[in-house]
Amino acid sequence: MNNELQELLKSIRPLDAAAVKLAEERQSKLAKPPGSLGLLEDISVRLAGITGKVKNRAEKCRIIVLCADNGIIEEGVSSAPRSVTMAQAVNMTKRLTGMSSMAKYFGNEVVVADMGIADPYDCPAILNHKLMPGTRNFLKEDAMDRETAEKAVLIGAGLAAAAAKDGCDCIGVGEMGIGNTSSSSAVLSVLTGLSIETVTGRGGGLTDSAFLHKKEVLEKAIAARRPDKNDVIDVISKVGGLDIAAMCGVFLGAAANRLPVVIDGFISIVAALCAARLCPDAAQYMFPSHASFEPGYRKAADELGLRPWLGLGMRLGEGSGCPIAFEVIKAACAAMNGMALFGEESVIDDGYLDEIRKGDSFSI
Amino acid sequence: MNNELQELLKSIRPLDAAAVKLAEERQSKLAKPPGSLGLLEDISVRLAGITGKVKNRAEKCRIIVLCADNGIIEEGVSSAPRSVTMAQAVNMTKRLTGMSSMAKYFGNEVVVADMGIADPYDCPAILNHKLMPGTRNFLKEDAMDRETAEKAVLIGAGLAAAAAKDGCDCIGVGEMGIGNTSSSSAVLSVLTGLSIETVTGRGGGLTDSAFLHKKEVLEKAIAARRPDKNDVIDVISKVGGLDIAAMCGVFLGAAANRLPVVIDGFISIVAALCAARLCPDAAQYMFPSHASFEPGYRKAADELGLRPWLGLGMRLGEGSGCPIAFEVIKAACAAMNGMALFGEESVIDDGYLDEIRKGDSFSI
Repeated sequence: MNNELQELLKSIRPLDAAAVKLAEERQSKLAKPPGSLGLLEDISVRLAGITGKVKNRAEKCRIIVLCADNGIIEEGVSSAPRSVTMAQAVNMTKRLTGMSSMAKYFGNEVVVADMGIADPYDCPAILNHKLMPGTRNFLKEDAMDRETAEKAVLIGAGLAAAAAKDGCDCIGVGEMGIGNTSSSSAVLSVLTGLSIETVTGRGGGLTDSAFLHKKEVLEKAIAARRPDKNDVIDVISKVGGLDIAAMCGVFLGAAANRLPVVIDGFISIVAALCAARLCPDAAQYMFPSHASFEPGYRKAADELGLRPWLGLGMRLGEGSGCPIAFEVIKAACAAMNGMALFGEESVIDDGYLDEIRKGDSFSI
Repeated sequence: MNNELQELLKSIRPLDAAAVKLAEERQSKLAKPPGSLGLLEDISVRLAGITGKVKNRAEKCRIIVLCADNGIIEEGVSSAPRSVTMAQAVNMTKRLTGMSSMAKYFGNEVVVADMGIADPYDCPAILNHKLMPGTRNFLKEDAMDRETAEKAVLIGAGLAAAAAKDGCDCIGVGEMGIGNTSSSSAVLSVLTGLSIETVTGRGGGLTDSAFLHKKEVLEKAIAARRPDKNDVIDVISKVGGLDIAAMCGVFLGAAANRLPVVIDGFISIVAALCAARLCPDAAQYMFPSHASFEPGYRKAADELGLRPWLGLGMRLGEGSGCPIAFEVIKAACAAMNGMALFGEESVIDDGYLDEIRKGDSFSI
């Protein structure tokens, strides 16, 4: 592993235990039955551990979208043409796609990075980090060199560092890349030892026969590439994608810069698992958003100890789960920062809240 | 049934089929694989049917919180003291509770109405619609007179009508009432024919023995009161609550005024089911928010054909699911209003989006 990547991993620290304790104390004093705000309580406590502050906010949120093509689509594993990667990357910068129209509404920033888009385009708003024009067909050869995979991880980490420098409170991860459910299923299967059958879905909508074919291709490719499950970079470089590598880097960079980071769907959570395997402490900085339709999503979420917040049946990708997840984080902050505390005299002059504290329930 | 209530029910119309069709047409032209925005697509189409407009918004949102006490708590079915109903109603007006701190952050209006708070208070911000100082103990006698139940429904409908008059785009329903999971379980059991065992939970946190006692009390009470399952007003008046009656009215009033209305947790969805039984078309105006811990929630949701959007493990009540649900509705509007359309020439000058349309997937 190159030095810079080793330094990145070493720079990641666990959550701030003192801040976590202070946040838990504040949560226990909020005028409600303990636990009644569910995951919103966990979010507020974890944010404290990330930032070191008990009261947090998620005002300035940025979605970082990593775009790259995948040579494996030569094998007919995707139902959409390659050029859609480029077309949608361009449309994201114009705020015309699903994710970006929501991001525009909620005031989220969107950064679109080309990690390896194959088709030409003219769009200065896309950050050019192209390392190669898409991966190679990993049924036939390694998707990319090990060095390229490490570079892509570091570029992703740099994008997270830039968000921290720009004063973002929270970031989210998205992707655009035809064929990337295939690379994600391959990476997840290798890392977890679960079968391709277990972790592979239809992507956006393959037919029955194309779905069978996709799984056959992935099984053959893994057998041919023989990635080392204990070496994440080896797995990514052999059967992964430039988007997965860079997203993995964004997760690591978020942790290194003590920024909360939102996971989107299937591709995103596989990259998150890669980051957590490289540095287990990085997982503490990750927040889920919605449940993906892909069967592998839940497997990766279980490994990361995460439960998705939203069940909206979405399967668009792009980072489309991030805008609503940011709103959930904002809600958690609003409750933590705004609710009355038991015993806060300026607020409670009649002892009623003491009665709430005595009971362990006051509503549903 | 009194005339005014009959008129209210008659005034409720089905969704605007022409607007639904136009909205579905627009959805099918959005530059994404069909169905990939999941429930956000359904939301945008249903909003069109409600308002008659294809493009909608949820800028001005109001949470209407119905507060009332329940005589059944004399039987030891709740773990919190009665006065908490009043204390939290007051705190809601100060934006100090869980729901109201989130509502404050997101800019939602909060209207708190006293439908039958037992304890005295001095808080002009609470709307005084007190019909009686809480229900009677329905183990021993009917919770309220039939006339009172009808009045409470009409008051709730009036609060929804006022929201429409004030220009609200969307409303949500909340409640505060110690003991109201008991009345809700009783109402749900009678309306659905499901056993008390099936539909009853621990509320905020009863012990094992108190939980058994709660279920025994409810079974005995239903046997003693013998409500007619085909007469919703009879059920509410015999084993329901003033909050449930008024919330039922808010749902009916929302439908009558063509306003989308968000369901909160268990008490709220039981009231929604009451409204749908009184007028099936009213269900088309209802949107879910989060899944409640109470086992009866899912039964009522299934009956209404609704699937909760959020799984945050919250059990606070108050309408605390509404602020985040409003954000989900805003996201649905943002995508419907902001995404590029296939073939919209000012946007697409390169034919790439046609390729997306050809493929049935371009990402996860």
